[in-house]
Amino acid sequence: MPLREKNLIQKIRRSAPKGRALVTGIGDDCAVLRLPRRHELLVTTDFTIEKVHFRRDWLRPELVGWRCLTRGLSDIAAMGGEPLAAFLSLAVAKDVPQKWVDRFLKGLLELAEEFEVPLAGGDTAQSAGGIQADIVVVGSVPTGKAVLRSGAKAGDQIYVTGELGGSAAALARLMEAKPTGAGYFRRFRPEPRIAVGQWLRQHGVASAMIDLSDGLSTDLEHICQESRVGAEIEAEAIPRAQAERGKKPVALELALHGGDDYELLFTSAAAVPQEVAGVRVTRIGRIMRSSGMRLIGADGKSRPLKVRGWEHFRGNL
Amino acid sequence: MPLREKNLIQKIRRSAPKGRALVTGIGDDCAVLRLPRRHELLVTTDFTIEKVHFRRDWLRPELVGWRCLTRGLSDIAAMGGEPLAAFLSLAVAKDVPQKWVDRFLKGLLELAEEFEVPLAGGDTAQSAGGIQADIVVVGSVPTGKAVLRSGAKAGDQIYVTGELGGSAAALARLMEAKPTGAGYFRRFRPEPRIAVGQWLRQHGVASAMIDLSDGLSTDLEHICQESRVGAEIEAEAIPRAQAERGKKPVALELALHGGDDYELLFTSAAAVPQEVAGVRVTRIGRIMRSSGMRLIGADGKSRPLKVRGWEHFRGNL
Repeated sequence: MPLREKNLIQKIRRSAPKGRALVTGIGDDCAVLRLPRRHELLVTTDFTIEKVHFRRDWLRPELVGWRCLTRGLSDIAAMGGEPLAAFLSLAVAKDVPQKWVDRFLKGLLELAEEFEVPLAGGDTAQSAGGIQADIVVVGSVPTGKAVLRSGAKAGDQIYVTGELGGSAAALARLMEAKPTGAGYFRRFRPEPRIAVGQWLRQHGVASAMIDLSDGLSTDLEHICQESRVGAEIEAEAIPRAQAERGKKPVALELALHGGDDYELLFTSAAAVPQEVAGVRVTRIGRIMRSSGMRLIGADGKSRPLKVRGWEHFRGNL
Repeated sequence: MPLREKNLIQKIRRSAPKGRALVTGIGDDCAVLRLPRRHELLVTTDFTIEKVHFRRDWLRPELVGWRCLTRGLSDIAAMGGEPLAAFLSLAVAKDVPQKWVDRFLKGLLELAEEFEVPLAGGDTAQSAGGIQADIVVVGSVPTGKAVLRSGAKAGDQIYVTGELGGSAAALARLMEAKPTGAGYFRRFRPEPRIAVGQWLRQHGVASAMIDLSDGLSTDLEHICQESRVGAEIEAEAIPRAQAERGKKPVALELALHGGDDYELLFTSAAAVPQEVAGVRVTRIGRIMRSSGMRLIGADGKSRPLKVRGWEHFRGNL
């Protein structure tokens, strides 16, 4: 193993927080973990690729690292689970400064510490060009209690946490080379909604759940397909982010289709509080028996809601 | 998600073998798995990167897929574990033919079926150039029984399974553009030693174990470092592969430092059979109290064994 990769592993080994579940971490062929009794295992993997998911000149390395882990933790949140450990596979080209890698890792470990998730292993390699990171997060959930995408029933109401479209709005600004929005995008540190997901699972509130990584229209379609139902969204009800302080909310299109929000989208037949674990929860529509998704506009008229995911924006990176 | 990635996921979903441990596979935010009672969880991740770990003009796509999963399964074998599920994160550039991706997946799934390991999830993305695959394998082992790298004691004998250096020999041929060795390299399908690893663990035979992915000198050093011991290897005892039928064995240097063999290296104070689960087992040296690694040559003279891993060969890819 080249010296650089060796040093990186040593660095991770020293700085990663220790978790209760971890029996043996970095330094063996596999990590060994203990699962709580009567719990099932959750596993999720997510790529973060330079020029596909981020650009080095647009985003501080700490934020790339933070978001890299957010993607994994957010998937655990969407099952109502508890994260146990993370694994990072990182490939970096020769010409990427060591400083960039150090700062990337700093951001990732900052979030790992916030959630007491040990970085328990992974792989490092020299890439043939650019930066590729694959984050794996394993977690646990009481047996049979994971909140799936497939549980939505006709008549269930549809909810989201937080506000949508902020990340996409700032990205759109960056692509137009308007630096005013850039500050928001550069600061934006999405918080995985672990506590919200657990509360919803523990109280049996969510019938189906997904995290908003690809955009509302794309992720709602996943719930509809897996649950074999349709959905009706009220445009006016969608909580839209303010990308700049004191400015008006982002365009509806960005809240509908923009990704990287890492809020939770869930369905429920039960009473849902307006705030869960300190996070705002908003009803935005309902699940329908008939398939397909519809959007009710401010004028009260209903039109088909087309899927236009995150890749629509990312295509131009 | 672009159509191509969507199709890929559908394809995997249909063709992946179902495992006993899998509760919910592809199609949700996380995979959900059940661990056997009184077992701990094993997790390993390994990158397979074009122009770093393989070249498209040297290796059939089926073999790249096969080896990609072998890397993960081999790590489970080295703990004495049972593989439960695999996860594939695959990034592919636009200009990579769909046929290549299909054949890569075919090879990977062929090995997955042999070991009844379901492909339970992963991620797909467009890469900024070339092919990057990250394989994650999760497995299980009875609580407290994982065979670690850190258990070697002075006086233990050192063993390897199978034969070493074949993969490196063929790669060396390819790099010299000598097509005679190429056939072997192209055919070479390393078998993860799952059954051997489990037998050694069940019979309490192995005090420390690692899989030979980076080369004997590098991987033996890992055992020495984690166990805080030294080692003495007998050059004449190392089982060297025959890269071509009927030809003489590969050079000692290749058996000492060449990687990608995926055999097991283990230490033991017990009696070890010459064959385990149909695989030859050979004693090649012993663990010493004093640190450092030494090589005893055919002339009976001892010299320091330097670490010269796989990257030495791969550097020129």
